[in-house]
Amino acid sequence: MAVKDGVGHRQRQAEATKDQIARAARALFAEHGYAATTIAAIAREADIPVQTVYSALGSKARILERITGQWMAESQTVALAEAYLSEPDPREQLRLLAALNRRQLDAGSDVVAIYQEAARAEPRMAETLRQVLAAREREIRKLVEAVVARRRTGPTVDEALDITLTLTLPEVYRTLVVERGWSPSRYETWLAETLAAQLLPWQGGEGPTS
Amino acid sequence: MAVKDGVGHRQRQAEATKDQIARAARALFAEHGYAATTIAAIAREADIPVQTVYSALGSKARILERITGQWMAESQTVALAEAYLSEPDPREQLRLLAALNRRQLDAGSDVVAIYQEAARAEPRMAETLRQVLAAREREIRKLVEAVVARRRTGPTVDEALDITLTLTLPEVYRTLVVERGWSPSRYETWLAETLAAQLLPWQGGEGPTS
Repeated sequence: MAVKDGVGHRQRQAEATKDQIARAARALFAEHGYAATTIAAIAREADIPVQTVYSALGSKARILERITGQWMAESQTVALAEAYLSEPDPREQLRLLAALNRRQLDAGSDVVAIYQEAARAEPRMAETLRQVLAAREREIRKLVEAVVARRRTGPTVDEALDITLTLTLPEVYRTLVVERGWSPSRYETWLAETLAAQLLPWQGGEGPTS
Repeated sequence: MAVKDGVGHRQRQAEATKDQIARAARALFAEHGYAATTIAAIAREADIPVQTVYSALGSKARILERITGQWMAESQTVALAEAYLSEPDPREQLRLLAALNRRQLDAGSDVVAIYQEAARAEPRMAETLRQVLAAREREIRKLVEAVVARRRTGPTVDEALDITLTLTLPEVYRTLVVERGWSPSRYETWLAETLAAQLLPWQGGEGPTS
């Protein structure tokens, strides 16, 4: 038993070290850019020996993966995605999607910007971003299929998917919330109502009522 | 008269040289980035002596200004902006704004990307981009005031401005036209209808009918 507890403790410590590295790297990536940040600088910022950083996470790409995992955990993506897929009312499904999108961007618009910069600087990261966006598209397609499938009027699944991917863009959030000063909850309401007006026009979808 | 004609000829030649430099620079900026492109490389690409490039346009910032001027001339921005400001019907005004936005982005989404990259690389270009966007905001505010002012229902001028700036973002065009494969005219119709549904809800604005 003592041996097992020792292993558990060491694992928890290893996880804590990885989280500490990821937090330090996230601040440096956001400030100086992914391409310009070295593992040595991350080690200094995290106050952890360079060799430990290498053995814990190995590369900047793996550190960015860890940052992404932290972000997803913070924004409770999985729980919300499960909720919207099992919700029967299409208008309520779109409200849950807007809530998820708002929560993700509240918690991680810095991470989105890090990915975009990394993808411009390194072909390998461009490929990673392409995969992340493809996974996001598959998730949103599932929702959109549930919302618009087997309807006689309104947009097709492909059309609804294109519109949903567009309205949920980080640049839309950035413009309304960061630049124009909307509160995140006002953005969320606008997004839910605009998606409903666009995807469910037969339900008397109207413009924002705010 | 001979002297005057000589002056006219030299002026036309000087303008043609500036256009030639701008065209060469636009291709290089788009391919390698504004920050990474040198005046020497632009001179080589334009097949013009470096010294002539310096005396004609002096700096990369002035070359980018010239590129912007060419872009505005190509997309006939001024004529369309005059048309939408003098149009009495608000729905038609929004249709003209959508047409203008589509034409600008058809003709110059590469120029938008050059500005964004230049602004990330150089603080002076970030300031230039800020001024360009502020001028764009003033233009769109004029239109939005004409469209929504003195109405009892629907969004306020500020709200309508925020929404219009968001829906006309280059990233929205890029997502729908470049990534999702919409034709520019389908984008234009969608933009006009979505703006009408958002800004003129009392007119029975509805989702896209496409």
